[in-house]
Amino acid sequence: MTTAMCPGSFDPPTNGHIDILRRCAAIYDRVVVAVVSNPSKNSMFTLGERIELLGESLADLDNVDLAAFDGLLVDFASEQAVDVVVKGLRAGSDFDYELQMAQMNSHLRGMETVFMPTSPDWSFVSSSLVREVARLGGSVGDLVPAPVAAALEEKLA
Amino acid sequence: MTTAMCPGSFDPPTNGHIDILRRCAAIYDRVVVAVVSNPSKNSMFTLGERIELLGESLADLDNVDLAAFDGLLVDFASEQAVDVVVKGLRAGSDFDYELQMAQMNSHLRGMETVFMPTSPDWSFVSSSLVREVARLGGSVGDLVPAPVAAALEEKLA
Amino acid sequence: MTTAMCPGSFDPPTNGHIDILRRCAAIYDRVVVAVVSNPSKNSMFTLGERIELLGESLADLDNVDLAAFDGLLVDFASEQAVDVVVKGLRAGSDFDYELQMAQMNSHLRGMETVFMPTSPDWSFVSSSLVREVARLGGSVGDLVPAPVAAALEEKLA
Amino acid sequence: MTTAMCPGSFDPPTNGHIDILRRCAAIYDRVVVAVVSNPSKNSMFTLGERIELLGESLADLDNVDLAAFDGLLVDFASEQAVDVVVKGLRAGSDFDYELQMAQMNSHLRGMETVFMPTSPDWSFVSSSLVREVARLGGSVGDLVPAPVAAALEEKLA
Amino acid sequence: MTTAMCPGSFDPPTNGHIDILRRCAAIYDRVVVAVVSNPSKNSMFTLGERIELLGESLADLDNVDLAAFDGLLVDFASEQAVDVVVKGLRAGSDFDYELQMAQMNSHLRGMETVFMPTSPDWSFVSSSLVREVARLGGSVGDLVPAPVAAALEEKLA
Amino acid sequence: MTTAMCPGSFDPPTNGHIDILRRCAAIYDRVVVAVVSNPSKNSMFTLGERIELLGESLADLDNVDLAAFDGLLVDFASEQAVDVVVKGLRAGSDFDYELQMAQMNSHLRGMETVFMPTSPDWSFVSSSLVREVARLGGSVGDLVPAPVAAALEEKLA
Repeated sequence: MTTAMCPGSFDPPTNGHIDILRRCAAIYDRVVVAVVSNPSKNSMFTLGERIELLGESLADLDNVDLAAFDGLLVDFASEQAVDVVVKGLRAGSDFDYELQMAQMNSHLRGMETVFMPTSPDWSFVSSSLVREVARLGGSVGDLVPAPVAAALEEKLA
Repeated sequence: MTTAMCPGSFDPPTNGHIDILRRCAAIYDRVVVAVVSNPSKNSMFTLGERIELLGESLADLDNVDLAAFDGLLVDFASEQAVDVVVKGLRAGSDFDYELQMAQMNSHLRGMETVFMPTSPDWSFVSSSLVREVARLGGSVGDLVPAPVAAALEEKLA
Repeated sequence: MTTAMCPGSFDPPTNGHIDILRRCAAIYDRVVVAVVSNPSKNSMFTLGERIELLGESLADLDNVDLAAFDGLLVDFASEQAVDVVVKGLRAGSDFDYELQMAQMNSHLRGMETVFMPTSPDWSFVSSSLVREVARLGGSVGDLVPAPVAAALEEKLA
Repeated sequence: MTTAMCPGSFDPPTNGHIDILRRCAAIYDRVVVAVVSNPSKNSMFTLGERIELLGESLADLDNVDLAAFDGLLVDFASEQAVDVVVKGLRAGSDFDYELQMAQMNSHLRGMETVFMPTSPDWSFVSSSLVREVARLGGSVGDLVPAPVAAALEEKLA
Repeated sequence: MTTAMCPGSFDPPTNGHIDILRRCAAIYDRVVVAVVSNPSKNSMFTLGERIELLGESLADLDNVDLAAFDGLLVDFASEQAVDVVVKGLRAGSDFDYELQMAQMNSHLRGMETVFMPTSPDWSFVSSSLVREVARLGGSVGDLVPAPVAAALEEKLA
Repeated sequence: MTTAMCPGSFDPPTNGHIDILRRCAAIYDRVVVAVVSNPSKNSMFTLGERIELLGESLADLDNVDLAAFDGLLVDFASEQAVDVVVKGLRAGSDFDYELQMAQMNSHLRGMETVFMPTSPDWSFVSSSLVREVARLGGSVGDLVPAPVAAALEEKLA
């Protein structure tokens, strides 16, 4: 039995995130979605909102748990008896930074990391670009789950 | 007939920018230089100054228009009946970010983007590095058009 | 009026190629598809076959010309009164090599090159991978135009 | 329960390979090491030798199976009821090529791929460089398992 | 006789920095470690602290000088009769940015720059990641010299 | 006193090579140009021709030695009491491959390698592209030293 952890800010969750999480849920026995409590930059959505939006988008999956964490990812992963951390990787996303983090996490606690490539469909979708486009009045309804689209609209009204 | 749009902050315009704009003007029937009104970071030069400096550097070209925009680039490009957005690309500049933006703009409005490589002569010249060098007292007179060099000197005096 | 040239081996043409060529035809007044007579490696399809397959896939476009060339691309582009060479660029395809070629072509003849990003839909499709998958018995019918799929089947039968 | 497949030429297996395979065996319930029968280039070691060398180096692991394959990886993976393909990824190894293959495999059969970063200790070790160094008389004894070192010596004697 | 300059913020010095500096001291006749007085972001350690920590970690080397600088690196390097600037380069660190800086420094003053690859052992170690891990309670004692580990502990107590 | 070694095939030497070698000669006390006897691919110029062309292009420098080598670079560098290997690095040239080689050479013999960025002027010039352009009848006279241009002309006549 293999437990995977998918960490992220999910500010907000995008279709790219949901795609990765659903594919993880199909591969691994248990998936812990670890939501960073306090992202380094001001978040658009509160921790509670981000967890709620993830929950609504993944409600049909019974092997996925949502959890908030602060502190070191490797400490939280050890507490949760995680076998492997899974990070989504967009073509051209910051592979070098992700590799550095993976090697540090291996060094600190022997925690393993694997990278899962995002679907080409969502290769250009990131939370920050979704926020920017939405703020400028662009339509992002087909890039995020329906509850996120509604929440963005409300937040920016 | 093909209309191209060249967006940017131009804070300030460099010889690299002018090179790209002149080459666009030689290829395309009409070139709209779209100057971002409010760059995400504090700009050194005001919108008016940036447009004036571009105008002085491109005065001899009669198929180039200067325009300010805020909001979504694709909305402005549609208003201007633009066929293609042209972005200059330095060796090693943020290709992956530019690709993400191009794919988003294609997704939002079907707007096309092409990338034009900068001349090797200006491969290391960016507005931010020009500002940094000028602030530290370095000579940038051969990296920017003469009106920009004068404006930098005045601004930093 | 702007004439673009799209060079390539097209061995065989893929949906990614056709997507780029159609988008070019929508932007530029005239598009010359320049098919390399003798690719550096043995080609699977003859020059005649490659041109015919392109022709069948682009038959509805009246501003696209097909032409074979050998020798230097810039010489052929000059003969054809081309304003700009357009190269498709996949995320992660060999940008650095393409940049080198573009700078060489600019050096040799002042020929301009721009890069057009492929659609995310076809980001993983290349002629060589299509050939390899088809040879191993995989289905590539949704990655290439119908005439190419038929030609591949026949060639590998 | 999760079954992972680790494909490769292993010509010859290096400490980097063994490290990845052991870490996979610790994460996944079952690991199938899929050895390419006919690598695209002439191999130094026969298929039988490569499988034997892997077997000697992984003899203590009881959830690892060795198997040869030719044809499409995704066909073999489906036969073996594999949940996920795991590819080792060196810093700076050909991520873009690997991403293209992963997206093709997802397209062909919905097969998932994840990338596992190699240990920094073995970041510069590849089969081809090991072969080249050994051929030129350099010592590779600390870069490959002992049976491989012996086999290399014998092969090059 | 060759004098090398190694510039940096060293906030704080890591084992990766010390490795590069010691290897430079073995290659070049004289090494000037140029500590940026005012890094662009708030530093964790004062200039005095950073110089002291470097000094303690390099005390046994008699061809290494420590010096603070502000202003343009090339001006300081000229004052110090430096032949070549040496920058450490991690796999995947920002090579493109470093190249831009090197070309600018060559342009401004003809100052030469070479890049020295970090040891694989420290490939994932950077000052910023060390600070982040230490702030979150992780152990960095084996990633920095002993005096730095002690200083971090004190600073974060 | 510092001795540098610059290895390469130099088939043929380009202005980019000569630029790197002259800059090395200005930084280091002694420079050994190590010409690979048997490049992995068939060379256009013989070893003798390549050494002669380098000699003619560097005749005015008295701290540069030319030497042929086969076998492991690190063995030859040790024989020659070399302190550091210097490799020219073009923007976008194969940094990852060069890093792998540098780390291997460090592992095999503790041999140090540094990378020197090429001048932007020659960023697009490589021996292989020069050969290709010359073979197709393009003018490379301003990309290589005069004796090389003459030799190319003769070779291709």
